[in-house]
Amino acid sequence: MKNIPWQDRPDNCNDIIWRYSENPIIDRYHIPSSNSIFNSAVVPFGDGFAGVFRCDNKAVQMNIFSGFSKNGIDWDIDHKPIQMKTGNTDMIKSDYKYDPRVIFIEDRYWITWCNGYHGPTIGIGYTFDFKEFFQCENAFLPFNRNGVLFPKKINGKYAMLSRPSDNGHTPFGDIYISYSPDMKYWGEHRCVMKATPFEDSAWQSTKIGAGPIPILTDQGWLMIYHGVVTTCNGFRYAMGAAILEENSPDQVKYRTQPYLLGPAVSYEQIGDVQNVVFPCAALHNIEEDKLAIYYGAADTVVALSFGHISEIVQFTIENSL
Amino acid sequence: MKNIPWQDRPDNCNDIIWRYSENPIIDRYHIPSSNSIFNSAVVPFGDGFAGVFRCDNKAVQMNIFSGFSKNGIDWDIDHKPIQMKTGNTDMIKSDYKYDPRVIFIEDRYWITWCNGYHGPTIGIGYTFDFKEFFQCENAFLPFNRNGVLFPKKINGKYAMLSRPSDNGHTPFGDIYISYSPDMKYWGEHRCVMKATPFEDSAWQSTKIGAGPIPILTDQGWLMIYHGVVTTCNGFRYAMGAAILEENSPDQVKYRTQPYLLGPAVSYEQIGDVQNVVFPCAALHNIEEDKLAIYYGAADTVVALSFGHISEIVQFTIENSL
Amino acid sequence: MKNIPWQDRPDNCNDIIWRYSENPIIDRYHIPSSNSIFNSAVVPFGDGFAGVFRCDNKAVQMNIFSGFSKNGIDWDIDHKPIQMKTGNTDMIKSDYKYDPRVIFIEDRYWITWCNGYHGPTIGIGYTFDFKEFFQCENAFLPFNRNGVLFPKKINGKYAMLSRPSDNGHTPFGDIYISYSPDMKYWGEHRCVMKATPFEDSAWQSTKIGAGPIPILTDQGWLMIYHGVVTTCNGFRYAMGAAILEENSPDQVKYRTQPYLLGPAVSYEQIGDVQNVVFPCAALHNIEEDKLAIYYGAADTVVALSFGHISEIVQFTIENSL
Amino acid sequence: MKNIPWQDRPDNCNDIIWRYSENPIIDRYHIPSSNSIFNSAVVPFGDGFAGVFRCDNKAVQMNIFSGFSKNGIDWDIDHKPIQMKTGNTDMIKSDYKYDPRVIFIEDRYWITWCNGYHGPTIGIGYTFDFKEFFQCENAFLPFNRNGVLFPKKINGKYAMLSRPSDNGHTPFGDIYISYSPDMKYWGEHRCVMKATPFEDSAWQSTKIGAGPIPILTDQGWLMIYHGVVTTCNGFRYAMGAAILEENSPDQVKYRTQPYLLGPAVSYEQIGDVQNVVFPCAALHNIEEDKLAIYYGAADTVVALSFGHISEIVQFTIENSL
Amino acid sequence: MKNIPWQDRPDNCNDIIWRYSENPIIDRYHIPSSNSIFNSAVVPFGDGFAGVFRCDNKAVQMNIFSGFSKNGIDWDIDHKPIQMKTGNTDMIKSDYKYDPRVIFIEDRYWITWCNGYHGPTIGIGYTFDFKEFFQCENAFLPFNRNGVLFPKKINGKYAMLSRPSDNGHTPFGDIYISYSPDMKYWGEHRCVMKATPFEDSAWQSTKIGAGPIPILTDQGWLMIYHGVVTTCNGFRYAMGAAILEENSPDQVKYRTQPYLLGPAVSYEQIGDVQNVVFPCAALHNIEEDKLAIYYGAADTVVALSFGHISEIVQFTIENSL
Amino acid sequence: MKNIPWQDRPDNCNDIIWRYSENPIIDRYHIPSSNSIFNSAVVPFGDGFAGVFRCDNKAVQMNIFSGFSKNGIDWDIDHKPIQMKTGNTDMIKSDYKYDPRVIFIEDRYWITWCNGYHGPTIGIGYTFDFKEFFQCENAFLPFNRNGVLFPKKINGKYAMLSRPSDNGHTPFGDIYISYSPDMKYWGEHRCVMKATPFEDSAWQSTKIGAGPIPILTDQGWLMIYHGVVTTCNGFRYAMGAAILEENSPDQVKYRTQPYLLGPAVSYEQIGDVQNVVFPCAALHNIEEDKLAIYYGAADTVVALSFGHISEIVQFTIENSL
Repeated sequence: MKNIPWQDRPDNCNDIIWRYSENPIIDRYHIPSSNSIFNSAVVPFGDGFAGVFRCDNKAVQMNIFSGFSKNGIDWDIDHKPIQMKTGNTDMIKSDYKYDPRVIFIEDRYWITWCNGYHGPTIGIGYTFDFKEFFQCENAFLPFNRNGVLFPKKINGKYAMLSRPSDNGHTPFGDIYISYSPDMKYWGEHRCVMKATPFEDSAWQSTKIGAGPIPILTDQGWLMIYHGVVTTCNGFRYAMGAAILEENSPDQVKYRTQPYLLGPAVSYEQIGDVQNVVFPCAALHNIEEDKLAIYYGAADTVVALSFGHISEIVQFTIENSL
Repeated sequence: MKNIPWQDRPDNCNDIIWRYSENPIIDRYHIPSSNSIFNSAVVPFGDGFAGVFRCDNKAVQMNIFSGFSKNGIDWDIDHKPIQMKTGNTDMIKSDYKYDPRVIFIEDRYWITWCNGYHGPTIGIGYTFDFKEFFQCENAFLPFNRNGVLFPKKINGKYAMLSRPSDNGHTPFGDIYISYSPDMKYWGEHRCVMKATPFEDSAWQSTKIGAGPIPILTDQGWLMIYHGVVTTCNGFRYAMGAAILEENSPDQVKYRTQPYLLGPAVSYEQIGDVQNVVFPCAALHNIEEDKLAIYYGAADTVVALSFGHISEIVQFTIENSL
Repeated sequence: MKNIPWQDRPDNCNDIIWRYSENPIIDRYHIPSSNSIFNSAVVPFGDGFAGVFRCDNKAVQMNIFSGFSKNGIDWDIDHKPIQMKTGNTDMIKSDYKYDPRVIFIEDRYWITWCNGYHGPTIGIGYTFDFKEFFQCENAFLPFNRNGVLFPKKINGKYAMLSRPSDNGHTPFGDIYISYSPDMKYWGEHRCVMKATPFEDSAWQSTKIGAGPIPILTDQGWLMIYHGVVTTCNGFRYAMGAAILEENSPDQVKYRTQPYLLGPAVSYEQIGDVQNVVFPCAALHNIEEDKLAIYYGAADTVVALSFGHISEIVQFTIENSL
Repeated sequence: MKNIPWQDRPDNCNDIIWRYSENPIIDRYHIPSSNSIFNSAVVPFGDGFAGVFRCDNKAVQMNIFSGFSKNGIDWDIDHKPIQMKTGNTDMIKSDYKYDPRVIFIEDRYWITWCNGYHGPTIGIGYTFDFKEFFQCENAFLPFNRNGVLFPKKINGKYAMLSRPSDNGHTPFGDIYISYSPDMKYWGEHRCVMKATPFEDSAWQSTKIGAGPIPILTDQGWLMIYHGVVTTCNGFRYAMGAAILEENSPDQVKYRTQPYLLGPAVSYEQIGDVQNVVFPCAALHNIEEDKLAIYYGAADTVVALSFGHISEIVQFTIENSL
Repeated sequence: MKNIPWQDRPDNCNDIIWRYSENPIIDRYHIPSSNSIFNSAVVPFGDGFAGVFRCDNKAVQMNIFSGFSKNGIDWDIDHKPIQMKTGNTDMIKSDYKYDPRVIFIEDRYWITWCNGYHGPTIGIGYTFDFKEFFQCENAFLPFNRNGVLFPKKINGKYAMLSRPSDNGHTPFGDIYISYSPDMKYWGEHRCVMKATPFEDSAWQSTKIGAGPIPILTDQGWLMIYHGVVTTCNGFRYAMGAAILEENSPDQVKYRTQPYLLGPAVSYEQIGDVQNVVFPCAALHNIEEDKLAIYYGAADTVVALSFGHISEIVQFTIENSL
Repeated sequence: MKNIPWQDRPDNCNDIIWRYSENPIIDRYHIPSSNSIFNSAVVPFGDGFAGVFRCDNKAVQMNIFSGFSKNGIDWDIDHKPIQMKTGNTDMIKSDYKYDPRVIFIEDRYWITWCNGYHGPTIGIGYTFDFKEFFQCENAFLPFNRNGVLFPKKINGKYAMLSRPSDNGHTPFGDIYISYSPDMKYWGEHRCVMKATPFEDSAWQSTKIGAGPIPILTDQGWLMIYHGVVTTCNGFRYAMGAAILEENSPDQVKYRTQPYLLGPAVSYEQIGDVQNVVFPCAALHNIEEDKLAIYYGAADTVVALSFGHISEIVQFTIENSL
């Protein structure tokens, strides 16, 4: 457990999740080539933190970059994108890489991302040191996005959430889980949870997708996810939470009917894509009951928000669909 | 006649309609459960004002809430949505309620709203005290929105404006009028006015819909309405005015070619839906020639604007399509 | 009861509904001006039959024409469209008329059709002799199609089925019922039945609409209707049946999961619109347990089919969704 | 090797593939419940043939049925759909089943089909006797169609072609290959071949999908496939061939620029979906150089066509894109 | 003037245009490589006729082929597409060629067609002998189709009708005229006539396009054209006529409200694209008052129809919009 | 050469193009009737500058207005739109005018704009004094936008860039060049450059269009252009540069892979259309190596940016696709 970034809840705030007062923590022009930096992943590493960042360059090409930080807030991001070496396969085509997630399992840091292979699908790679990276077989056929690994094997197998999609700005999307004995072949696909009927919870009625690596709590897996509603002027992305059964994570125990955090401040409402709150990573300290959620804002910058894990779990139980 | 909210026109302003300097008057988080409060209706009531407010909660479920105010600006809104009792029918399904209008006719306050009955249609209810509410039969078959009653019977019958639509973010929409002898059965449907050819007045070329309850002037009924243009990045809602024949309100005498108020300040341009000015209610003082128009801004907050009735009428006549 | 058109079921046929061997009974060029004649209505009249026919002319303008027949099969159709006189209203705009239904109630023959009034809605008219016709107020606001009257008042009021739609080739559509004390004002709108989930009964999963005038049986109202499925090459229209509660016809007692008749012969599969079976009228003889269903085929010609009422009712009960 | 169905090429015919003169071999009403029978698979079995047939019933629900034939032309199809028992998994949801393929590998007959699991994906099952069937895990996440197994392991692994799609009438589609060590977990996904640029070969420019089980020839795997062009009046499906590298079947050696068989006779041009030729199975006799291709016609019936394997291979080489 | 193909009007026929009894005159497989032959042009040549034919090959690549005939009905079509030499420009890209028109002006036969240059536009070429062909500059920027030359200069300039479109199955389209002093530079673009409002003449309400070379009559230019209506199952193409002012052909004097010939027989209703009648050429004999119109049927074959010029002109005047 | 507007690059800025610190230079309400002023053109004139401005009025009708400035920053814009006199043609219809460009060639100032003639096309006019304006024939058939003249004849002919489009918010668009001997007839159309594959340079992957008048440099013509990407919430417009061959300007020598300036400040991100940077004019001083680019921001205001010509050229060469 680390000294994760933290700010106490503001005095006049009753929200379960609150924003960091110095947001955004990473600006769109944080590295020389970037047009925008958002939807990125961080993990504890050494005596600080490491991360994999989505930096779209000024040609608006999407790629992932490694970075390091002492405090989880101030980040050194490499000016060059990650160069992959071959992992469990011959090197395969990768037209683009975006929306990474990172997690340590057993002996190494596993990275998943949206990989451009004749359309978006889930790329898998690993690193031991965030300097040398190895690319493995894609997990699935296209078209897929938001591949998120569980932080440990479940029933002896690796488990991954993902959201099958189409080859455009997909207007639908549900969360599935798949299992693998070896990080190479995947199967036992199950639907975990679906977008909601508009009347029940409109903010998550168009599509949903897993966000940070799920966190094991005494109630089960806490899964922070994004939900999307289609307004007459486009998509609006907000953040919610669900609790999945520990040993059968395709079983949803609870799921927030209200969102936890929605676009309401300028860096979330204005940018390359308006009205986007997109969580991709979280740092947690179970002992101190703290959660720091990193999220992309307006597809332009990286922002940070905080919450108490116990409160989020309690809120999810009490406000479940 | 009341002391309606008022601010004189700013010195350097030549506009027919001007904004309240302390806008928005109701913030998106005005009540604990709300994600947004907008498109709402107010009327004089007792020695102050009462209103019916559209408050979408944080699950983005749409519902209507009652509220009271001494000055028409500072509002106490109930934290629970209106619970309807049966009016002239067995209670019917109501998946959602939004965009209310309110008017006193004869002995009670009639409320209309967009009611979710297998899609949007026009719900009707009444109250005597804004505490107890009674729900009647829907006026029309789906799909319909923006049902607005006239403040008195016309030729012995209730009269209602509405905008037939489809079951989505309707890309068309004209204003019709219908009549009823009893607020239960409706007929004599007539087209009042249609969206304009793009070249004639683009801001109202996609769809139009009635806003506040029409106001009887010596020129006829003053109908404030919204118009929509489709830009390459979505809809843009602005506000105009028309004068309808007093005894044959399906006859349009005058109609503004220019808009009266369009999205141009941040709370109108930024929010859950960008670039929306959507009038739903107005308080008027004929003697003092004052009009206070309440409008939803960016589908997120309630704002207030002012004008002199005589100037609006004159402008409509002089700038008519 | 009349000698309605009839042919016994062919020997090798096990179907509940079978086709007339001399179909189509009315060809597309049956009158000099016509491009197509289809979706038409007939009733017993005098010692024979009268009808109202949809004849699209060679400019493909849609209008309705009266006709007479001794045997219900060979028809004399007027070469000029019906000229309406004013009924219960000033004459209203009618850009086009199509898909008529006819029924005798109390003292006259009532006709409903899809009437072009700023888009499709339900026109109402009446005649005593099929020579002089009177046009009344439209029943509803646009957009609506397939308005079908019940053959007698229900609970003291006229009752009409209809299918709210949009202003194009509507890709959705459910059946509603509305009531009127006077054939002028309509209300008490209720949803009767909806298009089905694709997996349950695909042939009626896109939209549905009432066909002939419902027939009162000892099980309730027998409503023949059309259902539509969207294939990758367009819509396909077939015919089914439902039984509605006699005094509460918004209550569906039974409804066919399989279709009764689908496009399978050349005059149904080929024409101006491929793969259309669209029932609009039926002649019945309760004593002889006979039903003769008239349907438009491929939006081009009029065809005839037969069935035993008791068998249809039984089949509907036994194969209900 | 069997006495597969066969007819010599007609005298005046120069085509590589020709139709059976008695087509269609299975009519839409071949079993009592069926609306249509098409896109079906056959294999040699015992001293005759067995098959798995797509029969849509008159509710237009899609399911698969077993059948047997002595000569491959006259078929006894079970009147009830196949009831699956659990194979390598707990029984999973299957909203519908369609477009089966069948092949004997090692010790049993494997069946793949389009399985409805929250959208279309590839179902897998097996049988030893075409009486008792066992359903396994779906191969992939939705959305996918046209899963076709190779008839033997390649490099020690099962291999399957498939066409990732979306959840509707997908307007795109390329052929991929995936591998599995155990028929349960799949990976090593590779793109095999894509729809063509319109100018190069329009008939296969919208989407393509594998058809019968590939046949090993001395030039490599002969893969018969369907291609689709989008006309202004919908999709048109035709049949082509490709030769894949024997040990690296993601490598395309040759691929027909012209189609081999396109919709040109009435049972292919008229039916529930016009202009469809959709091959799903083939019987071959290498010694006699004969191929009998079964194909769905107009999504309504099953038809048969013939060709000499050597000629097809030669034509593919000489007319390759 | 020639002995153009001719058949008298059948006895029981009252139509202005009637079909050749031996239609289609050119089958889809008329040459070995062809998938379909349609939308083609013919002219008097030598003691017989010559033509330029659209033959799509079995890869469904579109190209134009020359052909000759003694009687205008039996055609020898070259088995290889026309190879162009450079005319008034360096050879330009031509991804495809389709829908040719041909006319003799001054000293040579000019050919126009839809030319694939980064999308469809109007290609121009000429020949003296139908053996050697020369390709000139495209007349216009993309996107355009149905370029049709007038048979002589008007006010000293070449004149061409065309239909600006988009890069797909364009759902709109009006007829324009442009002028050129030299067949290289074009200008003075004027709108000639537009698709009609649906209510006025639905068959030509989606798009229209010029067909054969206009014919000068004593009333002005007789322009045969196609019109398109959008049914729920796709486009339907029919044929009409207009009379243009002789010296100001952007002035429409008369235009048929009804169509002259619509898809109503099997070779027009069934084929690669259903329900298409598409005129591209006409042979006329003014003295004998005969017109022979060649048209593509169902985008599959070439058919022939006949009419008396005086009757067509008279009908157009009497049935004008 | 003039004293064009100028501000040195800010100290901490490394960008090739930088914004004027007092942007926007022209506000949306700069003249009494305007709703927005943007996408406008300026040229040196007399001892100052003249311009043609797109001012949409409050009916959101699009028109062009003349204006004058001493310093190129503070502008007097006429309160009435330009009234055209006849140039080289009878006066033609002009439903609207927008997005003007202006350039002096030989003896006069030529103006091009998007002219509403049955849809958008390229209007041409000229003036000698910016008081009296003459309208000529449209250059092309509809549909077209972004017509930009070269500042001198090329190979003896006028040359114009343009972007063929469709009649709506066109989702595609490439840059073409056309030539004219006389500003009346146009031909020799060539494709210059196309939108890019998404993976190569996403910001210009939907459509592109020429901006200011090209500037001749020692490397060829410097063409500033806009590119558009389609996000899930609409279009985003940014600015890039290309170098065209001096005597064959359809040959692209270099083209920026990264954008030069994208929407990143509030007046570019918020307005009637969010996220628009749209260059329409530039003033240059070759000796001082200065370029001042005028651009419309958010379809609402006019903004100004600066760069050194040599740096832009160098950047384009070094960062070319």
